[in-house]
Amino acid sequence: MEVIKKSTIKKYKNNEFIEVDDELIVEFPFEIFVNDHRLATLMATPKSLKCLAIGYLFSEGLISNDNDINEILLNKNNNAYIYTNDNIDLSCDGTNRIRTTGCGNGTMPRNFISNYNKFIKNNDLKISVELINKMESQLLSDSELFLRTGGVHNTSLWSLKGEKIIFHEDVGRHNTIDKIIGDSILNNISLSDKVLFTSGRISSEMLIKSANAGICILVSRSTVTTIAKEIADKIGLTLIGFARKNRFNVYSDNYKRLI
Amino acid sequence: MEVIKKSTIKKYKNNEFIEVDDELIVEFPFEIFVNDHRLATLMATPKSLKCLAIGYLFSEGLISNDNDINEILLNKNNNAYIYTNDNIDLSCDGTNRIRTTGCGNGTMPRNFISNYNKFIKNNDLKISVELINKMESQLLSDSELFLRTGGVHNTSLWSLKGEKIIFHEDVGRHNTIDKIIGDSILNNISLSDKVLFTSGRISSEMLIKSANAGICILVSRSTVTTIAKEIADKIGLTLIGFARKNRFNVYSDNYKRLI
Repeated sequence: MEVIKKSTIKKYKNNEFIEVDDELIVEFPFEIFVNDHRLATLMATPKSLKCLAIGYLFSEGLISNDNDINEILLNKNNNAYIYTNDNIDLSCDGTNRIRTTGCGNGTMPRNFISNYNKFIKNNDLKISVELINKMESQLLSDSELFLRTGGVHNTSLWSLKGEKIIFHEDVGRHNTIDKIIGDSILNNISLSDKVLFTSGRISSEMLIKSANAGICILVSRSTVTTIAKEIADKIGLTLIGFARKNRFNVYSDNYKRLI
Repeated sequence: MEVIKKSTIKKYKNNEFIEVDDELIVEFPFEIFVNDHRLATLMATPKSLKCLAIGYLFSEGLISNDNDINEILLNKNNNAYIYTNDNIDLSCDGTNRIRTTGCGNGTMPRNFISNYNKFIKNNDLKISVELINKMESQLLSDSELFLRTGGVHNTSLWSLKGEKIIFHEDVGRHNTIDKIIGDSILNNISLSDKVLFTSGRISSEMLIKSANAGICILVSRSTVTTIAKEIADKIGLTLIGFARKNRFNVYSDNYKRLI
């Protein structure tokens, strides 16, 4: 399935209309079935869909690692069929979930925010200013879809030594994080000693999604919200925003991971 | 309730860290109760919350105009309590809803996209290039929250004569549109002869939300996705994107509303 579609548009520029060929980012309804029960339909970019499905299941608390997964299939319509090793509870009470500001995964359990207490453990991690600048300078240039359409978010996972390990892009801000999480589960990559760099704004559920997956240092090109900062402070996550061209802001009280 | 919170952050700039006072955009869990049944919790900016609640109910298909509303209350915690004149069906089957790429209102009925057929009627509307440029030049400067925090989306509603009628801002891209819709319902403003200008990307559900409310011309500072263009072409909505500094792109085949 194509991730970009050509389209003839009318461009207004220099006081005149011209007809030009343009490229639009494809958004499609990605259906996820778990044990033959339809779990969710995410609007997504049709790329790295197995990673997205697995990351989504993890973020929803339905699986915890690859041992829980028996099989993953994608059919020709790009629907995902996931079979787990054990039965899992797929009941979902809509009224107990919060609709988030975010992209892709629009809900989370209501008590997640006030009760969230997954404290960050790796307190001896250090990230250098050079790495923050390096991640920032590469994020958008790595994204072919962004350069061609301007219509996606991007997230990359880096080691603290400065190696880029995973990169994902999607129309949905959250989907990029779920794709990183799913990829790391499928390829047995630990997240707790790595740093996540995203183009997307860090609202509460972006932070919780990352912290649930073990991330201790989260950096964004964009801004952060008050709740994201409050949770970061509570659990000890290092939260950095507005990373752009040799500048950034450290929002969390936790400052000791920077060298 | 404050919409901005002061916070001391560490700013890295010119190769050094300095401690500065910064402002963060407030995000809070906005609970909406309908006839004493909890309908949803939206992560939102605590501003224009009655508009948001009413617009959300409209977008969810639960009310169609202000005659359906008996009373709206906001309690001291900024929870909304809405009482309707008639009983409405508040049952919600989570598996039949799509989680969208968007902000605030994360789901929509699964069959909305393929079956969507709310054809646009006002075919004699004309929008001038000057108005598109005027709307663009004012959108961000109108947004105090954007200028102070960089953390919100904005949407404005304009008459075709060039009068700005409503403006709303929120951490959630979708919430800005729901606030416009709710405001128009509460103040008896018709949307079908107006134009909507938003800072947010137009994905499928942003387009459907606008079209449901009667909007015929939708303009964004950002990009559009393939499905949004397909639905716009199907229903006859005029869809314009990347409106920035005297430039824009017309994505919809419908081109006749431009003069």
